[in-house]
Amino acid sequence: MKFHTEYLWFNTKNHREYINITQDLDKILNTSGIQEGMLLVSAMHITAGIYVNDDEPGLILDIDEWLESIAPFKKEYKHHQTGEDNGDSHLKSMIVHHQVMVPITSGKLDLGPWQQVFYAEFDGQRRKRVVVKAMGE
Amino acid sequence: MKFHTEYLWFNTKNHREYINITQDLDKILNTSGIQEGMLLVSAMHITAGIYVNDDEPGLILDIDEWLESIAPFKKEYKHHQTGEDNGDSHLKSMIVHHQVMVPITSGKLDLGPWQQVFYAEFDGQRRKRVVVKAMGE
Amino acid sequence: MKFHTEYLWFNTKNHREYINITQDLDKILNTSGIQEGMLLVSAMHITAGIYVNDDEPGLILDIDEWLESIAPFKKEYKHHQTGEDNGDSHLKSMIVHHQVMVPITSGKLDLGPWQQVFYAEFDGQRRKRVVVKAMGE
Repeated sequence: MKFHTEYLWFNTKNHREYINITQDLDKILNTSGIQEGMLLVSAMHITAGIYVNDDEPGLILDIDEWLESIAPFKKEYKHHQTGEDNGDSHLKSMIVHHQVMVPITSGKLDLGPWQQVFYAEFDGQRRKRVVVKAMGE
Repeated sequence: MKFHTEYLWFNTKNHREYINITQDLDKILNTSGIQEGMLLVSAMHITAGIYVNDDEPGLILDIDEWLESIAPFKKEYKHHQTGEDNGDSHLKSMIVHHQVMVPITSGKLDLGPWQQVFYAEFDGQRRKRVVVKAMGE
Repeated sequence: MKFHTEYLWFNTKNHREYINITQDLDKILNTSGIQEGMLLVSAMHITAGIYVNDDEPGLILDIDEWLESIAPFKKEYKHHQTGEDNGDSHLKSMIVHHQVMVPITSGKLDLGPWQQVFYAEFDGQRRKRVVVKAMGE
C-alpha cells in the first residue's frame, strides 16, 4: 500500500478566483507511482473550495455570479462582530464543498472528458493551502 | 488490498431525472468481494450528481422544484455563448455534488435505514456514465 | 492495512443544532492506531449533515439563518403528504452535504488551523447516528 501527500499553495491576485489544478494533480499522481486507488483533494481553509466542473470561461463567470446571488457579500453577518468581513466566503465554500475524491485507474485520474478539478478561492490575496493525498497500489 | 472498478451507464428519457442506484452498488460490492473498505460513486459528467437521501416520490419532486428555484433555467447564462443551453444543469450539479463515499462494513454498504444512493441527471436524453470504485480487503 | 469503524450517537435538545465533533474524531483516530490514510465521517440520516468550517458562534448563527433562507421550512412540500413535516431538513442536509473525508498524516487529522468538523442536525430531538471509518496503515 502506498501513501503520497503533497500540499499546493495559492496566493491569488483577486478576492475570488477559480484555478484549474488538474495538471498539478496529474503530476502528484505520477510522483506517487500509484496505479489503482483514490486521490483526496481538500482545501485546508474555511473560505475556499474544491470542485469538479468544466473549464469554460463563461461558465466560471456564471458560477461566480450565482454564488454571489445565493450567498451574497453583506455587512450584517454575525461573524463580522469578530472583526472579519468574509461571512459570505464561508457560505460560498459550503455550497461548493471543500473537497473531492478522484478515482485512480490504470495510473490515471479517472475523470470524464470534460471534468476538471478547480480550486475556488473566496477570500484570497493571502497564502492558502490544499492537501492532496493519494492512497493505493 | 483489493480494488474493483465498474462503470454505470444512463440514458434518461427526461431532461431531469433521479434514479435510485443502491441495488446496482450492492451488486458491484458483492462482485468485488470486499468486506471492509470504501466505495466511491462519482458522476463522470459536469451536469449530473450523486447524492444520498430518501426514496420518497414527494421528496424527489420537492428536491427538483427546489433546485430549479435556486439554480433556475434561464437564457442569460454566459456559458450559453458557446451554443450550450445547460448553464442551470451545471449549477444544479454543484449543489447536489457529483459524488459520495459509501463505507463498506462486514461486506455491506454501511448506510442508514433510509439512506439510498441516487444518480441525479440534470441534462439527460444522452448516454452518461458513473464510475464506481471499491477499495478495501 | 487497518480498518477501524465507530458510530457516534446524537440526541439534540433543539430541532436544529451544530456540534463540533473534532475531538471525538481525534479519539477514534488514536484508537485506530493509523498513521497514514483517510477518515470518512458520514451521517447515517437524511436530515443531518457533516461539514468542515470554523467554530465561531456568530458564523454558526449565520450558517443557520442562511440555510433557512435558501431551504425554508414551509408546509407546502409534497413530502409532507406522507405525514412528515421535515421537507426543509432534507434540503438543508443536501446543501451542507452528509459527509467529509479527513486525511490522516503522521497519525493526526490533517486539517487546516481553523478547520473543525461539525455534525449538523436539521431534525433533532431523536437518536441519530454518524459512521466514522478510518482506513490506512
